[in-house]
Amino acid sequence: MATEDTARPEHYVQSLERGLAVITCFDADHPELTLSEVARRTGLTRAAARRFLLTLTDLGYVRTDGRQFSLTPRVLDLGYSYLSGSGLPELAQPHLEQLAGRVHESSSVSVLDGADIVYVARAAVSRIMTVRIDIGTRFPAHATSMGHVLLAGLPARELDAYLADTPLPRLTEHTVVDPDLLRAELNTVRAQGFSIVDRELEAGLRSAAVPVRDRTGAVVAAVNIATQAVRHTLKSIRAELLPPLREAATRIEQDLARTIG
Amino acid sequence: MATEDTARPEHYVQSLERGLAVITCFDADHPELTLSEVARRTGLTRAAARRFLLTLTDLGYVRTDGRQFSLTPRVLDLGYSYLSGSGLPELAQPHLEQLAGRVHESSSVSVLDGADIVYVARAAVSRIMTVRIDIGTRFPAHATSMGHVLLAGLPARELDAYLADTPLPRLTEHTVVDPDLLRAELNTVRAQGFSIVDRELEAGLRSAAVPVRDRTGAVVAAVNIATQAVRHTLKSIRAELLPPLREAATRIEQDLARTIG
Repeated sequence: MATEDTARPEHYVQSLERGLAVITCFDADHPELTLSEVARRTGLTRAAARRFLLTLTDLGYVRTDGRQFSLTPRVLDLGYSYLSGSGLPELAQPHLEQLAGRVHESSSVSVLDGADIVYVARAAVSRIMTVRIDIGTRFPAHATSMGHVLLAGLPARELDAYLADTPLPRLTEHTVVDPDLLRAELNTVRAQGFSIVDRELEAGLRSAAVPVRDRTGAVVAAVNIATQAVRHTLKSIRAELLPPLREAATRIEQDLARTIG
Repeated sequence: MATEDTARPEHYVQSLERGLAVITCFDADHPELTLSEVARRTGLTRAAARRFLLTLTDLGYVRTDGRQFSLTPRVLDLGYSYLSGSGLPELAQPHLEQLAGRVHESSSVSVLDGADIVYVARAAVSRIMTVRIDIGTRFPAHATSMGHVLLAGLPARELDAYLADTPLPRLTEHTVVDPDLLRAELNTVRAQGFSIVDRELEAGLRSAAVPVRDRTGAVVAAVNIATQAVRHTLKSIRAELLPPLREAATRIEQDLARTIG
């Protein structure tokens, strides 16, 4: 990042990129970092990393004991700006809770961001084996049922660009990694109005997803139910989970039509 | 903000402050903003606002149709850095879901950030009247049960500073706005190990909270059950909600002791 100055457009505020990189260099495996570690993880000099860390500390986004730095909950204000602004997570949440309670499986809403799906709302059922997914979690779209629904809803040109440019890593032995096969699958998803993905993201994981459309018919989000192969066959997903999933999506769409625009 | 350059310490990266202000100027009431609106809401010149908006667009945090700007879900990455790093929300979530399912009321975990509580995990029950609260939502600590628990857990000097310096706005006719009365209430909360707040934040809203302590005994978070005056008397909160709430907090503390440090 620090070496690309010359390629940047004139308007570019590199300090902002660097400051955001300092925030995102903290993660689950690195909740506390020293100055040297932040410098190494961001590619900044120690002097630059220090200036950004101290500025973030002044602003209340970072705290330090003098040696270790960590993020404060104020960082959530940034994500909250998006969540509260989008409206969708808030209005979807009660429908997800109701759906999860009805089918005893976790249910989520995600949107497409580049080649990833990003979770924006979620209702989890309590289980020892619950997959832990927070708001903001990303997965590659090609390996998930919500991703298939969202990709199938893209305008043709955007889908062509995605299929031409995006690496499709193999995450399990079932992941579809061939662009032509993925395109065929997306055509099926578009025609039938749902996607069922069978252990393409992670061993043992199955999920079903349907689109959430705005009043113009555009696919703005996907809602899913995630389950495990030991609990649901593909047939029982179709028979037992898909109908209540469709109903929840319809209710979200009705609220969306009422609330927005 | 733009007028205070001279008061800043030498290390200060003002571009970072300004860029973050551009992100947080979007909210539920203003999910889409024009360049002029962003300039007005941040106090930046139009030229500066434009540079920050275009940089954020380059980085994928903002999108535009040429006239209106809005945040993209990539902004969640920033908050996600905190949530995944802290560990607490993730390990608390299944216990909250279980508790909410058991008592049929919403349950949340929050931490203290200055004079505010900030929600970091939440399990909502589905109801027409569900109070809509997202992760990252803030409320003033003095008017909430989780705030009372968190303030009661502060080191004496920090609590003194809070009581000396913090405005205590009256949010309902029941809000405790006198620092001496609040101190007395916090002493009670500390002694009894829980807080019950009766319509101090919002008319009709009641809640109970207990602390979550780390292995050293320090209060690191609070967990609550929120209900409504029409559904629960203070007596039934104490008799029916407090015991399962305490159990959930104990389970969160056990997981916390196992997982962290």
